[in-house]
Amino acid sequence: MSNDSQLADVGLIGLAVMGQNLILNMNDKGFKVVAYNRTTSKVDNFLANEAKGTNIVGAHSIQELCSKLKRPRRIILLVKAGQAVDDFIAQLEPYLEKGDIIIDGGNSHYPDTIRRCKELEAKGLLFVGSGVSGGEEGARNGPSLMPGGSEAAWPAIKEIFQKTAAQAFGEPCCDWVGGTGSGHYVKMVHNGIEYGDMQLIAEAYDILKHGLGLPTDEIAEIFAKWNTGVLDSFLIEITRDILRFKDTDGEPIVDKILDKAGQKGTGKWTAIDALDQGIPVTLIGESVFARCLSALKDERVRASKVIPGPPKQPFQGDKQQFIDDLEQGLYASKIISYTQGFMLMREAAVVNGWDLNNAGIAAMWRGGCIIKSVFLSDITAAYRADPKLESLLFAPFFQKALEKAQPGWRRVNAQATLWGIPIPAFGTALSFFDGYRSEIVPANLIQAQRDYFGAHTFRVLPGKENDHLKAGEDIHVKWTATSGNVSSSTYNA
Amino acid sequence: MSNDSQLADVGLIGLAVMGQNLILNMNDKGFKVVAYNRTTSKVDNFLANEAKGTNIVGAHSIQELCSKLKRPRRIILLVKAGQAVDDFIAQLEPYLEKGDIIIDGGNSHYPDTIRRCKELEAKGLLFVGSGVSGGEEGARNGPSLMPGGSEAAWPAIKEIFQKTAAQAFGEPCCDWVGGTGSGHYVKMVHNGIEYGDMQLIAEAYDILKHGLGLPTDEIAEIFAKWNTGVLDSFLIEITRDILRFKDTDGEPIVDKILDKAGQKGTGKWTAIDALDQGIPVTLIGESVFARCLSALKDERVRASKVIPGPPKQPFQGDKQQFIDDLEQGLYASKIISYTQGFMLMREAAVVNGWDLNNAGIAAMWRGGCIIKSVFLSDITAAYRADPKLESLLFAPFFQKALEKAQPGWRRVNAQATLWGIPIPAFGTALSFFDGYRSEIVPANLIQAQRDYFGAHTFRVLPGKENDHLKAGEDIHVKWTATSGNVSSSTYNA
Repeated sequence: MSNDSQLADVGLIGLAVMGQNLILNMNDKGFKVVAYNRTTSKVDNFLANEAKGTNIVGAHSIQELCSKLKRPRRIILLVKAGQAVDDFIAQLEPYLEKGDIIIDGGNSHYPDTIRRCKELEAKGLLFVGSGVSGGEEGARNGPSLMPGGSEAAWPAIKEIFQKTAAQAFGEPCCDWVGGTGSGHYVKMVHNGIEYGDMQLIAEAYDILKHGLGLPTDEIAEIFAKWNTGVLDSFLIEITRDILRFKDTDGEPIVDKILDKAGQKGTGKWTAIDALDQGIPVTLIGESVFARCLSALKDERVRASKVIPGPPKQPFQGDKQQFIDDLEQGLYASKIISYTQGFMLMREAAVVNGWDLNNAGIAAMWRGGCIIKSVFLSDITAAYRADPKLESLLFAPFFQKALEKAQPGWRRVNAQATLWGIPIPAFGTALSFFDGYRSEIVPANLIQAQRDYFGAHTFRVLPGKENDHLKAGEDIHVKWTATSGNVSSSTYNA
Repeated sequence: MSNDSQLADVGLIGLAVMGQNLILNMNDKGFKVVAYNRTTSKVDNFLANEAKGTNIVGAHSIQELCSKLKRPRRIILLVKAGQAVDDFIAQLEPYLEKGDIIIDGGNSHYPDTIRRCKELEAKGLLFVGSGVSGGEEGARNGPSLMPGGSEAAWPAIKEIFQKTAAQAFGEPCCDWVGGTGSGHYVKMVHNGIEYGDMQLIAEAYDILKHGLGLPTDEIAEIFAKWNTGVLDSFLIEITRDILRFKDTDGEPIVDKILDKAGQKGTGKWTAIDALDQGIPVTLIGESVFARCLSALKDERVRASKVIPGPPKQPFQGDKQQFIDDLEQGLYASKIISYTQGFMLMREAAVVNGWDLNNAGIAAMWRGGCIIKSVFLSDITAAYRADPKLESLLFAPFFQKALEKAQPGWRRVNAQATLWGIPIPAFGTALSFFDGYRSEIVPANLIQAQRDYFGAHTFRVLPGKENDHLKAGEDIHVKWTATSGNVSSSTYNA
């Protein structure tokens, strides 16, 4: 064995559960990994326990880590997003050579990734920001990996990444996403979509529990059934398992969990980014806000004691029909959420000059990650059939799905509204759908108001042009003039 | 007359319509104003026309402006938010002395105001960021003014500000808001609320137009009637006027306006700030997104041709009852929007160390500004009755109002849902209300999911504690273990 062959293929910094599992996964796939952690006792513990009997080696300093790696060095950071990433990059730099590759696999915000990539490329190093999804399980058995950044790095990391990633439908759940920042951007949108999926499931669960009044066991079996149909997905599957999981006293443990949702920020980033780009990603926005409202537990408890809802109305209709309606409503809302997410990526691609492959992104998400689902195969197929698809709502497959889902979806939303069950995500999805398919929305009135109080001007509706309402002109009306006396004029703002 | 008495009381930079009108207003109230504009021909035009025969004087340079002002100099900037504000501050500095006051009356983002205030105070100058609301009309006849910043500036500007402001219910629509940045913050929330009010009105209009199928003339009279009840407000009033306003051919001009809403950013800032603070200001968020969706006009037109909605269902019920329900739904949604806005200010006050006077803020908004309304008197009264009110939903007045409004509100939302009319703002308001008054929301399931795939841990629901689910501990469950076999443990994250 040559000395070089004793060098490791890849290094990984950060031995929390995610990092340990990703190392074990890469080891299983035949790669030699060197593990490092700031608190070096974690390295020893890892080698003595989880990594025992593997080819994994440890390092007790950054220098040792770098000395044990083949060139170009490939070093994955799995540390807390933010300052820690910059700190480790600064520590690594003295020991790296031109062409070496730093890969940030954390949940970094994509503008940070863009900045770091520029800084490192200026020094001759390569930088990749990679989304890593799938949580602990995914990291161990095959995550979805979304790498983007220095293009020259891809050939050097492709094999490791694609073999380590989950395999779904005969393809690795990993491909090159695109230019600087796109990997973390796509991961950010993925996480936002994950927030949306979870909120939708929570609302369906709430409707079954507080609307139909079903016991947890029965709800579990409904999710079990849903997991065999259009909703077949990891999140529906674990919901089934969670609802089935009993405490020692036989009570479902989910009923004993405090209803205060935490968040780590990437859903929020997606919503803020959507506001900044001007793309109506309403479902993720509502999902983030729903977690915020859940967090105000004490305030809600106080409010619940003094603010009554509607009188209890036992459900009168066909229960199974309603459950089927709910399945369709959840499915339709999910289609809307993904439509919005892909619309956001469409805009970000224009703004950042990325040539994003929508089919590739959907394909990467089919396995390994939290949102993996059969549904993502349909999205992959839609974008493969028409790479220039304007949005998912223009795909015949999804048009048909929504046509089928619509009546039940509307019935469920109307019923939840009457019951007093909050449906921020189901509700906004339907409002978006109804707005999106509307040639005319009431923004004409908003424009009139803005022109009335702020002289913000408006444009004429196509087909309504005349000699004082001209196409392409910014029109201002003196609204306070006598009615009937039009004195509109072009306003040179 | 002494030389000093010939000096002006206040200077104003920026002679767009807002600036001109504010100068004329201050002149009417007995203050001598010196007007300056970067393009100095505007100064001459203004003096020769609108300002003819007044005490208003002009300046053709920053130096001249400063030389014509009493000490401490009071200079109002009404220029485009952003770089222009910094540029004018830099130009002013050489001509100012300790204690002089720069007032930014533009729509600056409050973090910029905080920065500028710190920089200027370090140089011995005083800085005030003031919200100015009311558009052209308000500026001319009395705006709502929301000043905050260097506290020492307040006595020197109080008289000018309070006399120039609108008067409502015997009080000026202006008072000292609080510390650095609070004036622009409160104005930002005001603008966000304005977005919400406008979206709610637009949705009500849409329901009347496309749901009930009423002609514009009839809708105008409904708004006219609403303007005499709980909805009595500037925006309802101008909606009435807009809907009555005819083109020369007799057709309402509103029906000829392109349904593509513009925005200038302050609504977006409020939504982003809400996400950052973790406060569910969902109605403003949806209102901003609704404008974004309206802006995708071409995409909507294409979608409208291929995506069908529900079959047309003519309304079968009591039309007048439905219109009354709609009034109640609009009112209830508005209560929710203001509740959310005040919750956001509550959080910002904590974060920024402001001692915000909620009653004062509501009082300032009662006149002069776009959102002025009878409703704001009720909010003022609620906060005066209980300055420590947790949220508006804890005020007996609003609890009673919502109890009355609830049934009609739910019927309207359910009906719009079945009709296929988008109600992003009505819908999210009701979902927020139903969530806020819920002791239990389904976030327990979300926490279980997060713990399942990411070991994020959860807390136990009060009342459900046992020896392995302990209060105050971060609990992790091995969800993939056999069901019925609980192996939860405290997780030291």
